[in-house]
Amino acid sequence: MKKAKQVNNGPGLKIIPMGGLEQIGMNITAFEYEDSIIVVDCGLSFPNDDMLGIDMVIPDITYLTDHVDKVKGFVITHGHEDHIGALPYILKQMNVPVYATRLTMGIIENKLKEHNLLKTTKRKVIKFGQSINLGQFRIEFIKTNHSIVDAAALAIYSPAGTVVHTGDFKVDYTPVFGDAIDLQRFAEIGKKGVLALMCDSTNAERPGFSPSERSLSRIFDTIFHEHPSKRIIIATFASNVDRVQQIINSAYKYNRKVVVEGRSMVNIIDTAMNLGCLDIPENTLINIEQLKNYPDERTAIITTGSQGESMAALSRMAGSVHKKVSITPNDVIIFSSNPIPGNEKAVTKVINELSMKGAEVIFQDVHVSGHACQEEIKLIYTLVHPKYSVPIHGEFKHRKAQARLAADLGIPKDNIFMLNSGDVLEIDSESARVTGKVQVGSILVDGLGVGDVGNVVLRDRQHLAEDGIMIVVMGLDSASGQLVCGPDLVSRGFVYVKESDELMEEAGELMRDVLDKCIGRGGCDWGKIKTSVKDSLGDYIWKKTKRRPMILPIIMDV
Amino acid sequence: MKKAKQVNNGPGLKIIPMGGLEQIGMNITAFEYEDSIIVVDCGLSFPNDDMLGIDMVIPDITYLTDHVDKVKGFVITHGHEDHIGALPYILKQMNVPVYATRLTMGIIENKLKEHNLLKTTKRKVIKFGQSINLGQFRIEFIKTNHSIVDAAALAIYSPAGTVVHTGDFKVDYTPVFGDAIDLQRFAEIGKKGVLALMCDSTNAERPGFSPSERSLSRIFDTIFHEHPSKRIIIATFASNVDRVQQIINSAYKYNRKVVVEGRSMVNIIDTAMNLGCLDIPENTLINIEQLKNYPDERTAIITTGSQGESMAALSRMAGSVHKKVSITPNDVIIFSSNPIPGNEKAVTKVINELSMKGAEVIFQDVHVSGHACQEEIKLIYTLVHPKYSVPIHGEFKHRKAQARLAADLGIPKDNIFMLNSGDVLEIDSESARVTGKVQVGSILVDGLGVGDVGNVVLRDRQHLAEDGIMIVVMGLDSASGQLVCGPDLVSRGFVYVKESDELMEEAGELMRDVLDKCIGRGGCDWGKIKTSVKDSLGDYIWKKTKRRPMILPIIMDV
Repeated sequence: MKKAKQVNNGPGLKIIPMGGLEQIGMNITAFEYEDSIIVVDCGLSFPNDDMLGIDMVIPDITYLTDHVDKVKGFVITHGHEDHIGALPYILKQMNVPVYATRLTMGIIENKLKEHNLLKTTKRKVIKFGQSINLGQFRIEFIKTNHSIVDAAALAIYSPAGTVVHTGDFKVDYTPVFGDAIDLQRFAEIGKKGVLALMCDSTNAERPGFSPSERSLSRIFDTIFHEHPSKRIIIATFASNVDRVQQIINSAYKYNRKVVVEGRSMVNIIDTAMNLGCLDIPENTLINIEQLKNYPDERTAIITTGSQGESMAALSRMAGSVHKKVSITPNDVIIFSSNPIPGNEKAVTKVINELSMKGAEVIFQDVHVSGHACQEEIKLIYTLVHPKYSVPIHGEFKHRKAQARLAADLGIPKDNIFMLNSGDVLEIDSESARVTGKVQVGSILVDGLGVGDVGNVVLRDRQHLAEDGIMIVVMGLDSASGQLVCGPDLVSRGFVYVKESDELMEEAGELMRDVLDKCIGRGGCDWGKIKTSVKDSLGDYIWKKTKRRPMILPIIMDV
Repeated sequence: MKKAKQVNNGPGLKIIPMGGLEQIGMNITAFEYEDSIIVVDCGLSFPNDDMLGIDMVIPDITYLTDHVDKVKGFVITHGHEDHIGALPYILKQMNVPVYATRLTMGIIENKLKEHNLLKTTKRKVIKFGQSINLGQFRIEFIKTNHSIVDAAALAIYSPAGTVVHTGDFKVDYTPVFGDAIDLQRFAEIGKKGVLALMCDSTNAERPGFSPSERSLSRIFDTIFHEHPSKRIIIATFASNVDRVQQIINSAYKYNRKVVVEGRSMVNIIDTAMNLGCLDIPENTLINIEQLKNYPDERTAIITTGSQGESMAALSRMAGSVHKKVSITPNDVIIFSSNPIPGNEKAVTKVINELSMKGAEVIFQDVHVSGHACQEEIKLIYTLVHPKYSVPIHGEFKHRKAQARLAADLGIPKDNIFMLNSGDVLEIDSESARVTGKVQVGSILVDGLGVGDVGNVVLRDRQHLAEDGIMIVVMGLDSASGQLVCGPDLVSRGFVYVKESDELMEEAGELMRDVLDKCIGRGGCDWGKIKTSVKDSLGDYIWKKTKRRPMILPIIMDV
């Protein structure tokens, strides 16, 4: 027996985060014990600013497809895009079952339908408190609170010990829908002994406690009370069913009809209603077509677009391109959300546009976070009392903040693991250490293409975006090596050609000189011609404009 | 005498904001009385996200060049880019004198030097309390406080009455350098009667008072005290001379040598030292080359990059590409700044990179704003007691917030003017109204090109950035109309070609079919060929990929 093999494949539990540790989003973690792998969550992330034209980013799951016979299923904590968004793409690569709670599964099913995967995907809805056996693992779903209904933490039981994975969570003693987080169960499991806690880090830099979702109900009531003669428009996250519930409660109390606007919100509200996660009084919801039948003071609109997304309903209203809703000075518009980092300017733009139409805009203090702050994180650590700490969900600085909290709570520094995606953390009751690295990465999705846009294409898009392109096309007689036609210059995104005659003419002359020289020398090496064209035209344009458009010589064989 | 002329060219004072009202930046306002125009400030703004490849944006000053004989000079309030950055570009279009206080002029002169304009530009340094006569105007410079030394408000005296223009300001009773804002003078002028107040709106949404710059000195002392064995690196705005002064004070107190790093900061610090606006103890500043001669605990580095700018010194340190400074766990790095809206993600990226290198990063509560909050704005209104209010400097929502404050202070709503850039506000002691509109706009600067990138070029860059370009090139015999060579397909930024053989081959076949049909029909209309190529290739690619690259047919005449 080889010793090396023993070290790499010992009897420990392997925890392998395959995304979600370097960025917000793309949460996916594999748990492996001998012949069994389970995967917690399967999220997407949204493209960075430098990923031009990219729609979304999904994880590289080569490690899972390489061991597909071991993979027992996906266990999903809740229905947000950063936890479920990659599922349809990954399920096309490996058909394994999906386990989730009621609303989470409802949202997943909407996605599977769009991708024609509903029939082929085995699914099981799990109740809180219920456990499922998957190979060597047993997984228990524990009730938590979050900015979406039916969020779960997971207790993952393996022969090597128990891992508690919080998912995204907060502690809400007075949730709008359903029960508070099942702190008793966290305590029970903790009492029996927990190997590792993997806890949400998103708000680990924020002291104190995240306020209850229900604290907003008084705020909504006040807004409705103070604007009796105006139309009220409230933008929030499509998936925040509890928020929508509270807005509807206030609207009903103040005798208003409610319109839900924005495709993603309509979809999720439908799903939530069908599953009984929303309680809407009869005759409260109306169709957007009916809006014109009621005076402003009798209506409220709940809409998408709280992040300033350019195609969302609220942005279209602000930009006067929404077909059914025109903003007037008789509107009061509430942003029940905070801008997600990166969206600040887009949100401000929409606020300004709405204000310019005379509407009153309220955008502060009408939101609470769905993530645990420091006191909540400390509470969970204290109940679960893990031997090892593995901060998850967040950028490095957020996870580092949780690591500091864990250390404050007495967990030895050597037992706190700041992992990178791809790290294999091998863990049992005796020890824990990173024993290897698996292939991970970001797969870019652009339209129907999954992974066909890589660094070369992105670099080209960056270059094109910055200074445009200049194309030099010419025809050569391959027999004689003589120039038959061209060089013709065409540019796009470089300079307004009609006002740059001189520049383009001089560039054309330069190209003729360069070609005369190249071809005149007798040689007709196409590679050399292309290099000469690139170098000399690049230098000329830089000297004249201090710009560096992409220069693309095309030689045709005539 | 024509009546219409009387209405448009009455005896009033014309206030014409030519930028700065729809965005942060590009502050420039013309004041016109009969044959005299003076211009307050001449700023640039930074490009929006959709202005791909653009370096900066400057105002369209057609109105000024059309009336250049009237223009008596530029009067500058302070040395920030959004108030002086367009000066070199504008001075190339019209050579008129520039008036400013000492440090402001020092910074302007650095710019004029770069643009070879120093010799040809008439300049005059003005002291606080001093007035200058420009045509029908007298302009008095009044001491204020701001996040740059030597900021001034202006009292603009005209035969129609007095306008007070605050510039960017705050009320700092205990400034680091020089005197507090000259509130007595504001009061005196107010007592004599002020027609209009044009007041900074940037912080008009924030209640309370902006804390004194000096309040940071204790915070810096504490940071130095608590990190006796570490190297201290502090990032802040290059132009915040007072901030630099306080950091140097703390460093000196704790017996450390100071390095100033980052080109823009070095330049401004040099200028400020030469003008006596900085007081640095001997042997405190060292060159970055000398850094290696001192242990970490004896050094502090003041650097640019607090906004996460990718080329700035701190970002280069974070990315391990700075030639002289390597970040280690023995560094503590302080962001003495808040992210400017739009820079949040870039700042977070740098914080994460620094943290990953083991450094401690402090990024909260080590900054105060340079702009007046609500109580300060109310104070200025109360001292100046203007008849009319014209909120300036800020986006619509900021200016609207000031308008609400002005209304709260008793200014009739009809006397509060929410202007747009280009509006001509005609004003005298009897009345005020918008009587016209002048041409204004944004001129894009890209490299050496000023205004040669417009909407067409930007739209092309957007298109190229999104999905790249696909070029179809072919040679036609103009006599016979027959295809001589091609069609050849070349793409950039669309798809990784080596892995998309099939797609490219099919597209090539499709193009041959299209050309056969076009040319086979006998006709050889190049326009029609191009349209057919665009339409059929566009449809094909959309069907296959759901992408819309730019399609560029090029026909060569062989």
